[in-house]
Amino acid sequence: MKVFFIGIGLIGGSMALEIKHKNPQAVCYGISRQDETLDRALALGLIDHKAVWEDLPQADLVFLSIPVDASVNALPRILDLIPDQSLVVDAGSTKQALCTAVAQHPKRRNYLAAHPIAGTEFSGPEAAFLGLFDQKTMIVCEVEKTAFKLQEKAMSLFTSWGMRIRYMDAAAHDKHIAYVSHLSHISSFMLGKTVIEKEKNESDIFDMAGSGFESTVRLAKSSPAMWTPIFDQNKQHVVAALEEYIANLEEFKSLLEASDRDAMYQQMSDTNKIKEILNGIPLNK
Amino acid sequence: MKVFFIGIGLIGGSMALEIKHKNPQAVCYGISRQDETLDRALALGLIDHKAVWEDLPQADLVFLSIPVDASVNALPRILDLIPDQSLVVDAGSTKQALCTAVAQHPKRRNYLAAHPIAGTEFSGPEAAFLGLFDQKTMIVCEVEKTAFKLQEKAMSLFTSWGMRIRYMDAAAHDKHIAYVSHLSHISSFMLGKTVIEKEKNESDIFDMAGSGFESTVRLAKSSPAMWTPIFDQNKQHVVAALEEYIANLEEFKSLLEASDRDAMYQQMSDTNKIKEILNGIPLNK
Repeated sequence: MKVFFIGIGLIGGSMALEIKHKNPQAVCYGISRQDETLDRALALGLIDHKAVWEDLPQADLVFLSIPVDASVNALPRILDLIPDQSLVVDAGSTKQALCTAVAQHPKRRNYLAAHPIAGTEFSGPEAAFLGLFDQKTMIVCEVEKTAFKLQEKAMSLFTSWGMRIRYMDAAAHDKHIAYVSHLSHISSFMLGKTVIEKEKNESDIFDMAGSGFESTVRLAKSSPAMWTPIFDQNKQHVVAALEEYIANLEEFKSLLEASDRDAMYQQMSDTNKIKEILNGIPLNK
Repeated sequence: MKVFFIGIGLIGGSMALEIKHKNPQAVCYGISRQDETLDRALALGLIDHKAVWEDLPQADLVFLSIPVDASVNALPRILDLIPDQSLVVDAGSTKQALCTAVAQHPKRRNYLAAHPIAGTEFSGPEAAFLGLFDQKTMIVCEVEKTAFKLQEKAMSLFTSWGMRIRYMDAAAHDKHIAYVSHLSHISSFMLGKTVIEKEKNESDIFDMAGSGFESTVRLAKSSPAMWTPIFDQNKQHVVAALEEYIANLEEFKSLLEASDRDAMYQQMSDTNKIKEILNGIPLNK
C-alpha cells in the first residue's frame, strides 16, 4: 500500500506515524511545498520517501493536511491524478468550501471529508507524535458522497488509531466549530495580544502569571499560517461567534461598572456548568 | 506554635497541609463561617481543631484566605485580637483595598500582604493539596510596613514551601494582576457563556470540542463566590483591561470582515511570542 501525505506537519506527520505503526506493509511518501520540510520528515522517520505531485497516480491512499485555502486548490488536482479505486482524506478545520469545490468532480466519491478533533498548539513535522488521535473524535462530513468501500477503508483506519467517528453535514460542522474551536483561538490570541501590548516594557510582570493565564493563552502559540485561512474561510460563522462573545464581554463590563455583584455572580455560576459539559467529553490533552 | 486558618478551602487548606508537613510541632485551628466546612477540613486532616474568633488571642500565626471583600472587614478585627508578636498573612488576589483598610491600624506591623500565584479552578477543602505552592511565586506587597522579625518568619515559611518571593507595591500589583489574571478569568467565563448559550439545545456539539476549547474555558469552572468580589474590588483596572481586550477583538473582527489576511497573520504572528514569555515562567500546573 502506497500512502501519500501532502503536508507532513503536526497532523499529517502524526497520521503517518499511525499508518507506519498499524500498517507495517505501508510505504509512506511525503509531498510538501518546501523540500526542507520533507528532509525533516524523512529524518524523523515520518515518511519513507520524498515525492512529487507527478507520483500521485501510484497512490492507494492520500492524506491532505495543508492550510485550508491551499486544500481547496489542491483537492481537485489530487482527484484528477489518483487511480479510480484510491481514497483521499483531508483533515481541515473547515469543510463547506472543500466539499463545494469538488461537488461536481467526477471522482467526488474518492474523497472523504474529515476533521480530527485533535491537535496541539505546536506545528511542523517535529510536533507529530504517535497517539495524537487516540480517544479523539473524527468528524466525517457528507459521508454518503464517498464510495462505500472507501468509507469502510477510512473508518477502519480511524478506529485503528483509537478514534470515535461522528457524522455531520458540512454546513453544520462549520457553524458549530466556529464556537467550540475557532472562537477559542481568537479569544486566546487577543488575550495574549492585550497583555503583551500592555506589559511590553515590564517583562517582570510575567512573574505574576500563573497556570490560569497559561491555560487561557495556550492557543495563542498556534500557527498563523494554518489559522488565517481557517478564519477567512469560515468568516460568516466566526464573525457571528465573535459578535456574541464581544456582546457578552460588554454586558459583563457594564455589570462590573455598576457593581452589580448579584448579576455577575449569577452569570459565572450559570457558566460553571461547563464543568459537567467538559466532563462528558473524552479529552486527553 | 498555634496556627489559625480563617478560610480553609483550596488556598487555606493547602497552606495548612504545608504547615503540618514542614512544622510538625504546629497545631492547626480552623475558623469558618460554615461549621460544616470545618467538619470537612477536620475529616481531611487539614486542621487539628475547630475554632472561633474568640480563640484568636492564642494565635501565633494567622492565615486569612476568604473572599477579598470579607477580608477587608476581617483583617482589622483579627489585628485587634492577636497578641503583639503574632503575624497575620492574607492570600487575596487584590491588595490595595486591604492595605488601605489597615494602613492606620496600631498593629499594621503584624500584617503581611501576600498573594500566592497558585491555584486551580477548584475550590473548597477537598481541593487543597500538598505541593500547590511548590515552584510558584509569592507576591508580597508593602513589605516595609511589616515588622522585620515577622517578615523573616513569613519568608522562611514561604521558602520552605518551595516558593520564590517577589516584592511589589499594592497599587502596581492590582494594576498588573488585572491583565495577567483577572482578565483571563473573565475571557474564559464569557467564552463558556457564549458557547453554552449558543449550543444549549445541541449537547452533541460538545463532541466537537477538543483540548484547545477545554484549555481556554478551564477558568470558567472557578468559584463565583471568590471571583465576584475580586472583580468588584479591582474594578478600575479590570474595566480598563476589558476595554483593551474588547477593542482588540473588535479590530480583529474588522480585519476578518475585510478578509485582510496579511494583517490577521501579522497580529497572530506577533502574539506567538507568548511562547517565549511563557517559557520564561516556572509554571507547573
